[in-house]
Amino acid sequence: MNKTIENQLNHRTIREFKDKPIEEEKMQQLFEVANHTATSTGMQSYSIIRITDQELKNKLSEVCNQEYVRRAPEVLVFIVDVFRNAEIARAQGEHLKAERDMDRFFQGFTDGVLAAQNMTVAAESMGLGAMYLGSVLNDSAKVVELLNLPELTFPIFGMGLGYPNQEPQLKPRMPVELKVFENEYKKSDDIMADIAEYDEEMQTYYDLRDANNRVDSFSNQVVTRLKSATPKRSQLLRVVKDQGFDFQLEDE
Amino acid sequence: MNKTIENQLNHRTIREFKDKPIEEEKMQQLFEVANHTATSTGMQSYSIIRITDQELKNKLSEVCNQEYVRRAPEVLVFIVDVFRNAEIARAQGEHLKAERDMDRFFQGFTDGVLAAQNMTVAAESMGLGAMYLGSVLNDSAKVVELLNLPELTFPIFGMGLGYPNQEPQLKPRMPVELKVFENEYKKSDDIMADIAEYDEEMQTYYDLRDANNRVDSFSNQVVTRLKSATPKRSQLLRVVKDQGFDFQLEDE
Repeated sequence: MNKTIENQLNHRTIREFKDKPIEEEKMQQLFEVANHTATSTGMQSYSIIRITDQELKNKLSEVCNQEYVRRAPEVLVFIVDVFRNAEIARAQGEHLKAERDMDRFFQGFTDGVLAAQNMTVAAESMGLGAMYLGSVLNDSAKVVELLNLPELTFPIFGMGLGYPNQEPQLKPRMPVELKVFENEYKKSDDIMADIAEYDEEMQTYYDLRDANNRVDSFSNQVVTRLKSATPKRSQLLRVVKDQGFDFQLEDE
Repeated sequence: MNKTIENQLNHRTIREFKDKPIEEEKMQQLFEVANHTATSTGMQSYSIIRITDQELKNKLSEVCNQEYVRRAPEVLVFIVDVFRNAEIARAQGEHLKAERDMDRFFQGFTDGVLAAQNMTVAAESMGLGAMYLGSVLNDSAKVVELLNLPELTFPIFGMGLGYPNQEPQLKPRMPVELKVFENEYKKSDDIMADIAEYDEEMQTYYDLRDANNRVDSFSNQVVTRLKSATPKRSQLLRVVKDQGFDFQLEDE
């Protein structure tokens, strides 16, 4: 097994970092890695907002409802960015309806996530730790306001980076056989039986955010997560629409 | 610079592969890498369909409108999979509205893209080449049918893998400064001036799909892409809705 894959199989989310900044040279290398990631039809429809202002970091931390966000040495927010290319088209006199369509939106969303994961692998290869902050979507309208995001942009997730100050256990995963199918989707005949072993294994995992308690079984976590759904997150398409994207659901 | 990052900065899309299968052991290692990728709230809401049937590969190739897809030794389709966790909740007697919400959908979409990029980095570290096939969304309803995708699933993109049989040029990228902002989004005062150098550089790039012609400037490509938008791709949310997701745009 090569070193790259060894690191990838050892991935853990890091939420607590040493009180030490990441060298600027390393950050620039990480941005270069992001920049060389595959991108849908070459359009590079994403951007990254780097949060250097502590007050802003604190406000994002509140949106995330995760107080450790304010302590992360680097906090980045990845965004769908169709605005830039729309400006390029408009500068050439082209105001095209397609700039607002959902194909563009999903290409940008995909581009941003690809770039982020590429950066995470690079960061971990340097000995840095990373955490994704899907929690910026707790209030995407607020994030739009805080980061002054123009139309045709939308927050995807945040990322925290730094030198790790914790060594979490490797988090168990559902077996590959339940996720990889051949030629067509295969529904489980008895899903609870199929995940029984994984459910057991999950209960041997300790989450460092609550170090005194073992975590719940996966099947219980699924129900808990579904029950804790909040309107703002569930209705995130409202904000997507407010940002100027057109769902094009009507017949034309 | 370490080997992982060196490989990442050398990323190229590979579309032509040697007529040689990928060793099964390597494929399993790649699936393990996918499986250890970060996942939104631990829910692992994605799956991978591995296409081993040549007839099916041909049909996907037609959806993609890319004939080289049929020649790729491995073709995978990454899908949003909220169905599996919905089944886990239902098996416990819980039929929760949130299983259909867009938060779940976007978590699954994010999970699938993260896992795919992690696999790409691993594949490239083994000397394999990869291509993303966003083109499966040319007709997402057809892909749903071909792969027998149940409700609460949706295709994200395909991926082709194999031993490279071409050495494409490194594709130029827009400068990092246009993509990474500090604390807030920064609109360009003169976007055409900002991308002028990149526009020039792009014209020195040869696309191996059309080896006799240099590619167009980036700013022209942006307009061409927007003009070639097709209804099926633009209206992909229709299929998302048909797959059982609820946009929740109405007031409640």
